[in-house]
Formats: sequence, structure tokens, C-alpha cells
Amino acid sequence: MTFRASVLTLYPEMFPGALGLSLAGRALERGDWSLEAVQIREFASDRHRTVDDTPAGGGAGMVMRADILAKAIDHVSPPGDQRPRLLMSPRGRPLAQERVRELAAGAGALIVCGRFEGVDQRVIEARGLEEVSIGDYILSGGEPAALVLLDAVVRLLPGVMGNEASGSEESFEGGLLEHPHYTRPQEWERRAIPEVLVSGNHGKIAEWRRAEAEKLTRERRPDLLAATQPVRK
Amino acid sequence: MTFRASVLTLYPEMFPGALGLSLAGRALERGDWSLEAVQIREFASDRHRTVDDTPAGGGAGMVMRADILAKAIDHVSPPGDQRPRLLMSPRGRPLAQERVRELAAGAGALIVCGRFEGVDQRVIEARGLEEVSIGDYILSGGEPAALVLLDAVVRLLPGVMGNEASGSEESFEGGLLEHPHYTRPQEWERRAIPEVLVSGNHGKIAEWRRAEAEKLTRERRPDLLAATQPVRK
Repeated sequence: MTFRASVLTLYPEMFPGALGLSLAGRALERGDWSLEAVQIREFASDRHRTVDDTPAGGGAGMVMRADILAKAIDHVSPPGDQRPRLLMSPRGRPLAQERVRELAAGAGALIVCGRFEGVDQRVIEARGLEEVSIGDYILSGGEPAALVLLDAVVRLLPGVMGNEASGSEESFEGGLLEHPHYTRPQEWERRAIPEVLVSGNHGKIAEWRRAEAEKLTRERRPDLLAATQPVRK
Repeated sequence: MTFRASVLTLYPEMFPGALGLSLAGRALERGDWSLEAVQIREFASDRHRTVDDTPAGGGAGMVMRADILAKAIDHVSPPGDQRPRLLMSPRGRPLAQERVRELAAGAGALIVCGRFEGVDQRVIEARGLEEVSIGDYILSGGEPAALVLLDAVVRLLPGVMGNEASGSEESFEGGLLEHPHYTRPQEWERRAIPEVLVSGNHGKIAEWRRAEAEKLTRERRPDLLAATQPVRK
């Protein structure tokens, strides 16, 4: 089964973009996944191909119309399509590696990229769009977020990582940030690789890495520790 | 002063990518900001242009060498360059809108995109790289993350938003997710725009929006409320 991604956007020319190169690009060429970028304006009904209108109740910016976006969704993802329908939005649930793994195990995804101030709430509800946020910052639109989400998903598809496979996923699986890495040269600008790493003692190396990962996580992301460990009262 | 972005990458052809279109692309054409993507392999010393080596202490994946990356950094960002040096990495501090604003107010940024398992810790320390994470998921490399960071920053540069300016930033400034949006048609698939929004009563509209934003934030992101409000004990 091939993972099928359909992206609804006002900028289809942004795709495949970075996803057409490197790991994801080679997988796309091999047919390990497929990507279609669909222009939402194709579903507008006036000759200016208008997709937005002013917000009800007033305020800055423009809002994407429910009727036009719904037509685009229904065209790309007709009844019976099992793929989840995502809307990239800073209001969404924060994307985490667990959801990335779930998506990679599925049939694909329909991804709606918002622009303007937002999307009419009624189409979000009526078409069951799952709002997904890639982080607590504001983008010019959902497209860069869709590129990020797809990059994260595609690298987990069967066959994609190949020889470049690494243990990186464990970063968040263990609930810890990754320990520091070192490689040759042994000494560089008077800085040496920590002795334990060149000791050949695998038990000590594993112990050192675990301790460093814990230290780093405590310093930078105590929230990750709080999320995985029971709080003692 | 023009915001100068320099990206160090193994895939310079991924840039400007989505940043060459829409808001960011027009701003790039106007010269409101500049972007150079530099191939790290140019600074390798062997004829295979190798930039990585196996991890000291063993393990999966490859590690980017300190000596070669340092040469690339020193070339692109010589002493005296006031720009912050960022390394896109899931181990980094989570990017938030506040840091985006700081970056947009500055002279630019040097952005290092990691690939492989990671980057030799010594170059991170010796060159003062600030590790930045765009979210708790693993990407194939730092490039999609750099595109996201630059998109977020560029839209805040003077002159870039123009008529498309909106109040979106307030989303995170007020510590709340945004209220739902609606626009014409007034009724769609038997769903009407909430009455208050078409009442013309601006006080009530503001009140409704605030209440909806609070409700949404409580449901989806109680962490945001916890971060901005003192906890009552």
C-alpha cells in the first residue's frame, strides 16, 4: 500500500519543494509514496477565483470560505476515503512523534493549508478536519508546516530510510533528548573526544550517554521529564 | 538594514523553495531580506567531499565532522558578524513566537542544517551554535525546519506583510489560541454563522471571541494557560 498525500493549497507550486530531494525525493521517485498538490482556487465559482471573504463580526485579515474549501475537500477526498483530514493551524494539537508514526502507518493524509486569518469554522466541523500545529509560532501559511509534517512521516515509511537508518526516533521515545555526538578527528582545536567514548567499554559508554541525555533533558526540557515520570507528592 | 540569512546545508537546492513564493518570495525579490544557501561539502578536504564519519563510541548513523563544519561557519560568518548562529536540532530549545520576533528585529541569522545522526558536539560549543527545535518530531534533516523558521521570521520584517497584515500574532501574545472564524455565506449546509457575530454589537462580539478563545485554549492547550497565569494554591 502506497502512502498517498493530497495537499489543498493556494500555492501548489510549493510542492514537492524540499520533499522532491534527498530521502523523501528518492522515495517519491520510487513510488514509495505519492503527492498531489491541488489548487483550492480551482473550486471557486467567480471569475476572480475568490476563496476568501471578510470575517463575520469584523476584524483584520480574511477568512477562507467554507463552501469553496468543502468543494475542494470533497473532490480530493470523496466519501469512503479512509485518510485522515488535517488542517495545518497554530490552533491545533501540537504535532509529536507519536502522531507522526500513526500517520506513517496509515493510508495517507489529506492536508489543508490555511492562508489568511483562518478558515471558516463550519468547514472544520462539517468535514471533520483535525487541526495540527507544528509549533507555537505563526507562519505565512500552512504550506511550510505541511512540508515539515510530510518530511517527518515519509522518512518512517517502509524502505525509505534504507542505509541511512538511524536510532534518532529513540530521542523522543525514551522521553529524553539525545546525548552529544562526536566523531573524528580525535582532537580538534585542542578539544578531545571524551575519553569514555574511545575506551571501548560499551557498558560505560551506554551509561555515559544515558547520563548526558538525562542532564540535557533536565536543563533544556524539564517538561519532557514531567510528562513521562510520575510526580512524587 | 536588510535581514541576511545564510544557510549551511548539504542540500542548497532546497532553498529558497517555498520561501521564493508568496509573501516571502516577493519580499526576497524586493530585497527586504537576502538568502544564501551554502554547500557544506565545499569545505571538505578529500575528493569524495566527505563531511561525516562514524560516531565515537559506536552506534547507528553518521556524525557531521566538527572541523569541516567549522570551516564552513567561519567562511560564511567571520569574526565580527553580529548574527546569531542557529543549529536546527530536535535537541534544541523549542522555537516560540517570542524568539521569532527577536530574530526578525536583528541583522539576520546563520542557520546550520544538520543531517545524519547529529553534529559533533565540539563545533556546537566552539562556535556558539544555538540549538533550535521547531517541534517534538524527527525530520530527515534541518532544511525543512530552516524553511519554517525563516518563513516565521520574514513575515515580521518591515514592509513584508503589507495589506495582508493581520492580527494573527496576537494568538500567542495573549497566551490564547485564536477564536473561531466565520465568513459568508451566512448559511452553509444548514450551518449558520453564530448570531452574535452578525449582531453589530462590537462589545458582545469581543466578549464572545475572548470566551471562545479561552474555552479552546483550556480544551487543547492547558499548558499555555499554566505558563501565563499564576497558579493559585
